[in-house]
Amino acid sequence: MTESFICAFCAQSYPVDPFQTFCPTCYEPLLCAEVRKKKEFHFKYEHSLKVLSDFLPVLSINTDLSLGEGNTPLITLKNIEKKFKLPPLFAKNETVNPTHSFKDRGTVVAIQKAISLGFQRIGTVSTGNMAASTAAYGARSGLKTFVLVKDDTTSEKLIAAGIYNPVLIKVRGDYGELFRTSFLLGKENNIYFMNSIDPFRIEGYKATGFEIFLQRNRVIPDFIFVPVSSGGHLIGIMRAFQDLKKYGFSNQYPTFIGVQAEGCSPIASAFEKNENKVVRIRKAKTIAHAISNPDPPAGNLLLRMIKGMGGMILSVSDRKILEAQRHFAELEGLFVQPASATTLAGLLAFKKQQKLKKDSTVVLILTGSGLKVSSTLSLSNIRIQDSSLSDLSKIIESV
Amino acid sequence: MTESFICAFCAQSYPVDPFQTFCPTCYEPLLCAEVRKKKEFHFKYEHSLKVLSDFLPVLSINTDLSLGEGNTPLITLKNIEKKFKLPPLFAKNETVNPTHSFKDRGTVVAIQKAISLGFQRIGTVSTGNMAASTAAYGARSGLKTFVLVKDDTTSEKLIAAGIYNPVLIKVRGDYGELFRTSFLLGKENNIYFMNSIDPFRIEGYKATGFEIFLQRNRVIPDFIFVPVSSGGHLIGIMRAFQDLKKYGFSNQYPTFIGVQAEGCSPIASAFEKNENKVVRIRKAKTIAHAISNPDPPAGNLLLRMIKGMGGMILSVSDRKILEAQRHFAELEGLFVQPASATTLAGLLAFKKQQKLKKDSTVVLILTGSGLKVSSTLSLSNIRIQDSSLSDLSKIIESV
Repeated sequence: MTESFICAFCAQSYPVDPFQTFCPTCYEPLLCAEVRKKKEFHFKYEHSLKVLSDFLPVLSINTDLSLGEGNTPLITLKNIEKKFKLPPLFAKNETVNPTHSFKDRGTVVAIQKAISLGFQRIGTVSTGNMAASTAAYGARSGLKTFVLVKDDTTSEKLIAAGIYNPVLIKVRGDYGELFRTSFLLGKENNIYFMNSIDPFRIEGYKATGFEIFLQRNRVIPDFIFVPVSSGGHLIGIMRAFQDLKKYGFSNQYPTFIGVQAEGCSPIASAFEKNENKVVRIRKAKTIAHAISNPDPPAGNLLLRMIKGMGGMILSVSDRKILEAQRHFAELEGLFVQPASATTLAGLLAFKKQQKLKKDSTVVLILTGSGLKVSSTLSLSNIRIQDSSLSDLSKIIESV
Repeated sequence: MTESFICAFCAQSYPVDPFQTFCPTCYEPLLCAEVRKKKEFHFKYEHSLKVLSDFLPVLSINTDLSLGEGNTPLITLKNIEKKFKLPPLFAKNETVNPTHSFKDRGTVVAIQKAISLGFQRIGTVSTGNMAASTAAYGARSGLKTFVLVKDDTTSEKLIAAGIYNPVLIKVRGDYGELFRTSFLLGKENNIYFMNSIDPFRIEGYKATGFEIFLQRNRVIPDFIFVPVSSGGHLIGIMRAFQDLKKYGFSNQYPTFIGVQAEGCSPIASAFEKNENKVVRIRKAKTIAHAISNPDPPAGNLLLRMIKGMGGMILSVSDRKILEAQRHFAELEGLFVQPASATTLAGLLAFKKQQKLKKDSTVVLILTGSGLKVSSTLSLSNIRIQDSSLSDLSKIIESV
């Protein structure tokens, strides 16, 4: 093993010293000297869609339409584990998808389908992650893409979708009605509206479940926490584990915990009351905009599935969500959307009910990047010091 | 192969119809019916750092410190290829790293080293991508992390680094001097400043080169375009291909083209004048902030390496950079930082000089996400229409 630096100019070598990154003779940057190991690669890169294609409703995959979505990391959360005395905890980090949310997994499958069905125009009704995702894949596929957003959508979100140059329309009126109207408009104008509960989009989300299974060396985790909005994402992941059991890869399911924000929790309310139907709520009010859907179209189906598989839907307050967002960043180096932070807030609430065993394994699904909503964060929460160059030494010493 | 939808409530099946995503009987969402295929996985997930560890200057990898960086997609750019009559073109998409830039690959290696050397404090001097990356990995590793930024750093960038709760200090004074001072302060206070040209950071960037080689089925691409700031990133990638040749995996190098922004192009200037030393420029002025370094510390080394390997350093205007940024988004669904867009602007300039053969393969390295600088984009460039719900049909028909 190397433990030396080398100057690429004078070829002089030096012991490793992080305070000495320039050659004392040449004043050029030092590099690491050669590592004495046998050099071999034991790996072949494969496309996530190809790997999972046996399980997807597609005949063939055109990887040129893909942006390389999926294959996201499953990482440990040892610091959160330790701080809150939790069992083995993992995060499936969907924020590293091409448009920085899980939506890309669904969009790419729906797009393949749109093209195989001969569509030249696609669309979506969304205010956030799905708008950007659909616009990106629509642009890549050369399809005319209609993105219908709410009248009060922030400029941050308009830019994140508008940069791909879709037909971007701000629509005044009820959002739930817009969602339903889109299918009629699609039929009249031959536009495939791939909204949140599109069947092919949901199939795309299965890949997340399969990847977790493979990344855990084919062992099923005990709990999976997923933020819930329309319900499509969690349904897709549940279907993956149904497939795994059906085809003999496992003999059990994880316990699925869907998490909503208290300010918009129609599915959690129905679950608590043990009802079979989700009742639309009047007005959503939560910091977790990405899961703020007062009239979730797959709500009833999700309720039925989650009851059938022994899971639950719970809700958490905005205060707990923001706390969890800070924990992810400060303890684990993960900057996530408030919607994603519901998973940890949900886990901590669940733990209070003492429903976790010491040797359970828990997976949290982080759905979207914090960068997407950084304008909602205030500098007032960030500690910043000021210094001149000459005072810097004093300030650093005082830390 | 399935070509049907099924209702999970009434079990009725229907032909695939994107305009009919709800069951006509139950009004619940339809799902895809089962796919009749033999179901098998042919894949084992491996950690990027483990795959490449034979080539890295580390004895062991603690994957708990990793955020799952690397393993980024190499995707085709067929639409840009076609529009500009280019040879086979690929993008290595580094924007899908955990903090959405290539910096994570370097940070994770330097962090492993910091810990193995017994440091409890690390730091960096940066205004953008590296500040966020170092703060994130520092938080994850439980190391006290010092992030020194320029006095005029935007609140967007302060939040992107500050969210991880480092010791964040805005420093008045010359940035080049701050860079040099940081090593002295580090030595006095036992802080490992892992700046842009840190030797271990540079080793981490090698992984990008190895991945490209493996993703191209062990064929060396003809050209690789890389944005250039301090020089560390390109040096790391070049070192990967030097290793590949040295250990018998290939018998040639790609031609490396480093690209700078005209408003801050000290290395390109020196290259054009065939000089051996980079002269610091007075004042940088470019939209590509991430590569705006007037005094690049690895400039001389990069000049020497690029001449030795037959590559070149060129520069492109801000206008061409912004055009290229739009092309990536509108043609390929990729939202990148202006710094990353220099690669395409550089390729188009290079093509004008007729230096490309028809069967060359070209790889562009996309270094950071556009989301990080979305506040620099104006809504005025985004086409947005307004509509009421009732007028929507008319507006869509008119498109």
